Amino acid sequence: MKIRKNISTVSFIGSGNVATALALALYGCGVKVVEVFSPNVTNSKQLATKVGANYVADVKELNTVSDIYIIAIPDKYISDVVGKLRRVQSIIVHTSGSVPLSIFSKNTGNYGVFYPLQTFTKNKITDITNVPVCIEGSDKQTTDALVQLANRISNKVVLLSSEQRQYLHLAAVTVNNFTNFMYIIANELLSDKDIDFALLYPLIIETATKINNVDPEDAQTGPARRHDMLTINNHIEMLSKQPGLKKIYGLLSNQIIKKFHD
Amino acid sequence: MKIRKNISTVSFIGSGNVATALALALYGCGVKVVEVFSPNVTNSKQLATKVGANYVADVKELNTVSDIYIIAIPDKYISDVVGKLRRVQSIIVHTSGSVPLSIFSKNTGNYGVFYPLQTFTKNKITDITNVPVCIEGSDKQTTDALVQLANRISNKVVLLSSEQRQYLHLAAVTVNNFTNFMYIIANELLSDKDIDFALLYPLIIETATKINNVDPEDAQTGPARRHDMLTINNHIEMLSKQPGLKKIYGLLSNQIIKKFHD
Repeated sequence: MKIRKNISTVSFIGSGNVATALALALYGCGVKVVEVFSPNVTNSKQLATKVGANYVADVKELNTVSDIYIIAIPDKYISDVVGKLRRVQSIIVHTSGSVPLSIFSKNTGNYGVFYPLQTFTKNKITDITNVPVCIEGSDKQTTDALVQLANRISNKVVLLSSEQRQYLHLAAVTVNNFTNFMYIIANELLSDKDIDFALLYPLIIETATKINNVDPEDAQTGPARRHDMLTINNHIEMLSKQPGLKKIYGLLSNQIIKKFHD
Repeated sequence: MKIRKNISTVSFIGSGNVATALALALYGCGVKVVEVFSPNVTNSKQLATKVGANYVADVKELNTVSDIYIIAIPDKYISDVVGKLRRVQSIIVHTSGSVPLSIFSKNTGNYGVFYPLQTFTKNKITDITNVPVCIEGSDKQTTDALVQLANRISNKVVLLSSEQRQYLHLAAVTVNNFTNFMYIIANELLSDKDIDFALLYPLIIETATKINNVDPEDAQTGPARRHDMLTINNHIEMLSKQPGLKKIYGLLSNQIIKKFHD
């Protein structure tokens, strides 16, 4: 076992939004980012510069002495990189919500998952302090080391199984991706009628902050919650020229009615 | 015309969330709330007490000398109350997003719409200062008086036609009601797997605040945005026992793919 409980050096595979957020956070609390590899040369050179790391042009050139190797790349490439990093004997982790721990099962070393639950945007620094970091390790020693590392950058560290993490990721898609799509729909509706989308900001913020104190079921309001078919039919009529939106409006309204009135 | 540009007395019809929020805000900036009528005796007595108003047991008992009559009741009852308040010659308004101005067309006095764009929750005081108030008046003098009144409680007062207001309301349903339903779905998914819903708070807040600076289209991320069918199919598989959620996931993912990849 080559685990150092106090992880002090890290190699990054990836240079996108998640890699950048994690590398900056770790760098900021004194962990040495030794090197960055990613096929995107521009991004990885940029990230390497930001955190005083070496830029590595090939995954095979990564050193073998870092305390941890963090893979933060699109899901479909993880398996390939894991295959190329079998020689790592310290700890290797990925940062994906949906890829199970078993992707490392052919590894002889220590491995785990280090999943920060947040949406990271290019060119927008995200404070990671309040971001939940979900940990899973190949064994207790690895898990402990990962928890300790996560505790340095976040005050919300949790242990989750692969299955739990997959459901958390699905829930995250629901509250982030689908919600953001609602913003896109609203933006389209309003710009068609020359109305400033910014009028919705206070409502959007209130909708999000409310559920810190109120159970989502108690926070539900609106025509479908009231089973107000007059308003619902009027809205569906207003969407008659936008079949996609009409379908979404109809399905979501029906499901809300079903939940609260069946 | 019996319009006072500086409205100083108000009668309320309604004692629910919107009536309460508006009455408290107006009372707080020195407008005298003369009386409150609503069929819900408990609520209206409570509200009347809070703002030092009289409680009125019948709509016919409302005085005729207030500067404005604010109807804040469910849409389907508005028409009836408007019919009973034909004698009002000062200003009568409703507060609904979806009811057109023409509901007052048989009135001989002055009338308008005073629509605060926010979700108001029982027992949660909403600061109305940043809430957009959408105004429409039967004539310029009425509109001016309503704008001036709205400016006292909100720093975001806008003039909107009935059609614009209806689309704004539809957009509000989309970003509030449907988004909140996403929270309900996520809550169900997580509680099934013993995962704390609170883990999603930072993501939910970030999703909402991000679009203050980023166009919703640029903020879109996730499997559907990336056209990542592996993850999408995996999620659909995870929802195989929840046909309603599966349908929602499928439709929204398809629409996102259509928007970004067709």
